Amino acid sequence: MPAPLVLHEDRLFPAEPTTRAIARRLFAQVKDLPIVSPHGHTNPQWFADDVPFGDPTSLLLIPDHYLFRMLYSQGVPMESMGIPRRDGGPTETDMRKAWKVLADNYHLFRGTPSRIWLDHVFATAFGLKVRLTPETADLYYDHIQDALKKPEFKPRALFERFGIELLSTTDSPLDDLRHHKKIRETWDRRVVPAYRPDNVADPEFEGFADNVRKLGEVAGEDATTWKGYIRALEKRRAYFKTLGCTSTDHGFPTARTADLDPAACEKLFAKALAGKCSAEEAELFRAQMLTEMARMSVADGLVMQLHPGSFRGHNPNLFAKHGRDMGADIPTATEYVNNLKPLLDRFGNEPNFTMILFTLDESTFGRELAPLAGHYPCLRLGPGWWFLDAPESMLRYRETVTETAGFYNTCGFNDDTRAFLSIPARHDLARRMDCNYLARLVAEHRIDEDEAADVAKALAYSLVKKAYKL
Amino acid sequence: MPAPLVLHEDRLFPAEPTTRAIARRLFAQVKDLPIVSPHGHTNPQWFADDVPFGDPTSLLLIPDHYLFRMLYSQGVPMESMGIPRRDGGPTETDMRKAWKVLADNYHLFRGTPSRIWLDHVFATAFGLKVRLTPETADLYYDHIQDALKKPEFKPRALFERFGIELLSTTDSPLDDLRHHKKIRETWDRRVVPAYRPDNVADPEFEGFADNVRKLGEVAGEDATTWKGYIRALEKRRAYFKTLGCTSTDHGFPTARTADLDPAACEKLFAKALAGKCSAEEAELFRAQMLTEMARMSVADGLVMQLHPGSFRGHNPNLFAKHGRDMGADIPTATEYVNNLKPLLDRFGNEPNFTMILFTLDESTFGRELAPLAGHYPCLRLGPGWWFLDAPESMLRYRETVTETAGFYNTCGFNDDTRAFLSIPARHDLARRMDCNYLARLVAEHRIDEDEAADVAKALAYSLVKKAYKL
Amino acid sequence: MPAPLVLHEDRLFPAEPTTRAIARRLFAQVKDLPIVSPHGHTNPQWFADDVPFGDPTSLLLIPDHYLFRMLYSQGVPMESMGIPRRDGGPTETDMRKAWKVLADNYHLFRGTPSRIWLDHVFATAFGLKVRLTPETADLYYDHIQDALKKPEFKPRALFERFGIELLSTTDSPLDDLRHHKKIRETWDRRVVPAYRPDNVADPEFEGFADNVRKLGEVAGEDATTWKGYIRALEKRRAYFKTLGCTSTDHGFPTARTADLDPAACEKLFAKALAGKCSAEEAELFRAQMLTEMARMSVADGLVMQLHPGSFRGHNPNLFAKHGRDMGADIPTATEYVNNLKPLLDRFGNEPNFTMILFTLDESTFGRELAPLAGHYPCLRLGPGWWFLDAPESMLRYRETVTETAGFYNTCGFNDDTRAFLSIPARHDLARRMDCNYLARLVAEHRIDEDEAADVAKALAYSLVKKAYKL
Repeated sequence: MPAPLVLHEDRLFPAEPTTRAIARRLFAQVKDLPIVSPHGHTNPQWFADDVPFGDPTSLLLIPDHYLFRMLYSQGVPMESMGIPRRDGGPTETDMRKAWKVLADNYHLFRGTPSRIWLDHVFATAFGLKVRLTPETADLYYDHIQDALKKPEFKPRALFERFGIELLSTTDSPLDDLRHHKKIRETWDRRVVPAYRPDNVADPEFEGFADNVRKLGEVAGEDATTWKGYIRALEKRRAYFKTLGCTSTDHGFPTARTADLDPAACEKLFAKALAGKCSAEEAELFRAQMLTEMARMSVADGLVMQLHPGSFRGHNPNLFAKHGRDMGADIPTATEYVNNLKPLLDRFGNEPNFTMILFTLDESTFGRELAPLAGHYPCLRLGPGWWFLDAPESMLRYRETVTETAGFYNTCGFNDDTRAFLSIPARHDLARRMDCNYLARLVAEHRIDEDEAADVAKALAYSLVKKAYKL
Repeated sequence: MPAPLVLHEDRLFPAEPTTRAIARRLFAQVKDLPIVSPHGHTNPQWFADDVPFGDPTSLLLIPDHYLFRMLYSQGVPMESMGIPRRDGGPTETDMRKAWKVLADNYHLFRGTPSRIWLDHVFATAFGLKVRLTPETADLYYDHIQDALKKPEFKPRALFERFGIELLSTTDSPLDDLRHHKKIRETWDRRVVPAYRPDNVADPEFEGFADNVRKLGEVAGEDATTWKGYIRALEKRRAYFKTLGCTSTDHGFPTARTADLDPAACEKLFAKALAGKCSAEEAELFRAQMLTEMARMSVADGLVMQLHPGSFRGHNPNLFAKHGRDMGADIPTATEYVNNLKPLLDRFGNEPNFTMILFTLDESTFGRELAPLAGHYPCLRLGPGWWFLDAPESMLRYRETVTETAGFYNTCGFNDDTRAFLSIPARHDLARRMDCNYLARLVAEHRIDEDEAADVAKALAYSLVKKAYKL
Repeated sequence: MPAPLVLHEDRLFPAEPTTRAIARRLFAQVKDLPIVSPHGHTNPQWFADDVPFGDPTSLLLIPDHYLFRMLYSQGVPMESMGIPRRDGGPTETDMRKAWKVLADNYHLFRGTPSRIWLDHVFATAFGLKVRLTPETADLYYDHIQDALKKPEFKPRALFERFGIELLSTTDSPLDDLRHHKKIRETWDRRVVPAYRPDNVADPEFEGFADNVRKLGEVAGEDATTWKGYIRALEKRRAYFKTLGCTSTDHGFPTARTADLDPAACEKLFAKALAGKCSAEEAELFRAQMLTEMARMSVADGLVMQLHPGSFRGHNPNLFAKHGRDMGADIPTATEYVNNLKPLLDRFGNEPNFTMILFTLDESTFGRELAPLAGHYPCLRLGPGWWFLDAPESMLRYRETVTETAGFYNTCGFNDDTRAFLSIPARHDLARRMDCNYLARLVAEHRIDEDEAADVAKALAYSLVKKAYKL
């Protein structure tokens, strides 16, 4: 007899009864608020074409590097999970077998957010009532497979069922945004693009020069000159805005910014295009580009998101075999105070400018980010990101950030996911943890309950809309 | 009907009933102990002249960069709060209007210590019974304005009512300490100076050379030579001691120390006086000066306080408009283990030497500071400072420091404030959080309650007196 | 009437009653599991010769730098505790007097793990029923002294009474392991060596060249050439394996690794032997040696332990007077992501390779170590180490590591002690804290209790055996 799968109504609330009761009351006021998802990596084609999702493995395991990195870390071969190889070499094609690998190793996720999200998806999206174990693997596979054939599991139906008010994807300036156009023309829900120019702004990005050439083409500019390149970037921003875009996103290795004169920019850009930048010059070019992007944001009002500090593709053997985004991106220590100064010196006090900062280095939350956001009018703090979007790290985020930056310099929750089905699970978790934190403040008489309820609603809904100018 | 303002008697204690009851019992033993405030930034003239304080805004908002930085971070102009401009440009002069700006934005402080301190001041110092909101702004302004005219709200009366046993100010070696002299001559309470020589020990301080010249004058030494400069510093220390000073205070950007030979010192000093130090040389000079100060402390017994790691004046536009201490000082990563070594190599084992270390970089509490303080006889750890003097950070401080350094290598609480009225609030908060922490240890049978009570009393009163040699 | 010494049966469990009851149930399932101690610093001669331990001070105070560093930090002279001097200068020889110094200062350990361990030893190993205080110092001394004369307090009897299944010591490659041989020949319990080659792999280790010469002798190789040196290291590993060794241990200042070509290795080795390495070259040599050790581990299966980040002997005056391991080792900020890359690039995906990482820099747990261990199949995370093997730091370890790396990339508990009698106390504490953490997950419905029980057993027993290939 398999173990039951139960989502307890008090999950993620503190056990202490007085505090739990407060958390319940606060959560009751936010649980049904619409979901606003201003930053994520879902595929706009899903909503443009509204084709049913495929099998459970292709939907839930293969695109989710959170999942397969954990199995890989325990010696499970990537191929056994059906992860494709770049060389077309053999990989599991029987999706049921690959699903069984997940089921066999499901215990590895105990204590992780992946477990909480998946169980939420299983229980609420699919109505499963037993735990995923080696014994229930087939039952799961069949049940999910059947569900995915039904109309109510098509992408648009799920979007509506999930109560999503707005969903942003993340898109290259080279993208023609055809899916976004189609969505606008054929559906009344808001799916918008975000402008992510890393592939045309980082000289070390694969194919940088080629990407810049394409940028010139799509923008109708001569992007081989610094001025034409800048104009091309600006024109693509304007184009993105026509399709509802309100934000840009930047994922460089560091938060370094620079403020070079135009001659130096031209020279550096020429070197970058010629593929002749040293590592330091490539870093300087990226640094300058962040300041350029800030300048453009002051002009066009797009909200600038900065996500530094990930060492991408740390495992070259895995990269050679399977490519990018395979769970081998590792955070590094990240510095903001000195690095952001050139940009902030120019634009830190601009009323029309919003820059949202993220980090993978928790030690900066209290030391650097909260003090910066607690002073500069342009700065807001993004929520815990990637490795930090889990119960304990969310609590630590509130505990280290709030006392210096308050609640109103943060901007709600970002699910940042490519796992579309997990969006409600992630927002549920985030809202519960914010209520958990607030309930403790109320129980310890550090804030009155009416004020905590105001804050809970702001964190779940209004702050994100304000920060992202939605 | 406005929301009530209530200071709950169990505020800041854990909600779990057994633990809360222990916290209550511990707190009952420390709540009425006298306040010892060995480090702060109140104005000695208040106590020398005992002139009534002015209006609510000038007393509570304008001098408190904790408050206006938060409002500024949300786009509130400095001028609208009545913050003066260096160029004499227009700024709000209607103090009631500026007060209204604070009231309108009071929700920004939810979850911050500023809120806890202010509410404590409003409730206990002024007897206010409703919450500060846009609607009660005028009621507050009038009520506080009226109170400030009464004799029991004059500085000395408040000092006595607050139960302050000793208060230290922070003073320049160039200061003639006339207010301290007047206090000694006309009042029987202890207000003492602390010796803060940053303006004459940091070549990058504004007006360094001029300050050194003045130092020579007030000390009657030729401070243009290294030896005369050192003698002048020593003589000013001796003078400060005659007015009750027991400590020095040093706020350099890093904790770097050096141990140069006299010839190198002379050369570096000449460069510093000539304004020709490179950034590295300025850093080296400061490093040497910390070691010189330690040497002097070994000789004269003054306790040395070190507060490194703040990037002062990070926002140059704000600095140009409003000057120093405007909420734009941002912490940076701080290193102690290598940086302090030259100084500790010379004086780390001296029985007559006490150095109290502070940090704005929490990651050093457990990693560097507690291990250093848990070994070197001269070292003590200051409490959480500036951005870290709040409930959560105080708990983290105890949780990361105690297991390695114990309680007895820490030295009680420092309010470090220029907001005189908040001193009782800050000590109340610190004592409650220490009892909160100790109560958990007792409830989890990690310490017996009689021992916890001893510790609570030491943290509230005796350790600070011992550490500061009071 | 002295205060009682009571080990409460619920000690270290959360106070909240529901959570505490869960912790109790979980702990009941692990408390009697055998102790596996794969990393520590006990003396194998104790178990080889089974000679009774001496007096209380020599057994409990003098070898324990956790204890005397704390007393030293408060101004207690090392000599007064009977700590020997290198120059043979005067030191306390009356062990009862030295014990009294500990008793007089026992309050300094309030809130530290030393206090918890010592009280556990006093209560369970010796059956003491009153607290150690200045008044009970003699009672303690006499009671322990008497006990140590009894057969049930001889090393082997204690080992059996403690329920130790396996104990690893830490040994130099130069050691002939005679005590381990004798244990194997005369006793049926498992005491095994671990291979710690720092003294022959670090050019800055005292006597490096001489140690390498001896290495050649014991291995029967010409260790003056790079190839012979490498062969000698390999042969000693093979020899250690014959006596049950399954792991190596490396305690360099940083985690830096390198992957030099053989010619560069030869050249660097020659410089190291000649004592002509610069600091950077010594660091590079150590970096290369870590990669060599990894290569050997891939070949021979020994599990590789890496403990970087301690600044050894920070206090030169103390070192001159008393030598190594006197409580003056201080952690420093430690970097793993870039430093380990050369090694991981070569061996990170090897199925036969296990590397266990430790840190003294907590900020790396969530930022670097958990993401690395949550990806690389060779990596496992060691438990909180040294300054981090205490209740609060154990909780923080689980809270920051689990969400990214799960439980199964960690490897149980390491007592890492030279205080033999404290081994049961340390494992008791670790098991209780893991149950404390798990109980909260259960109470907050983040994991079901049956799964938590599985995890608790894995953390207490099975994971360590798997990770260390026991």
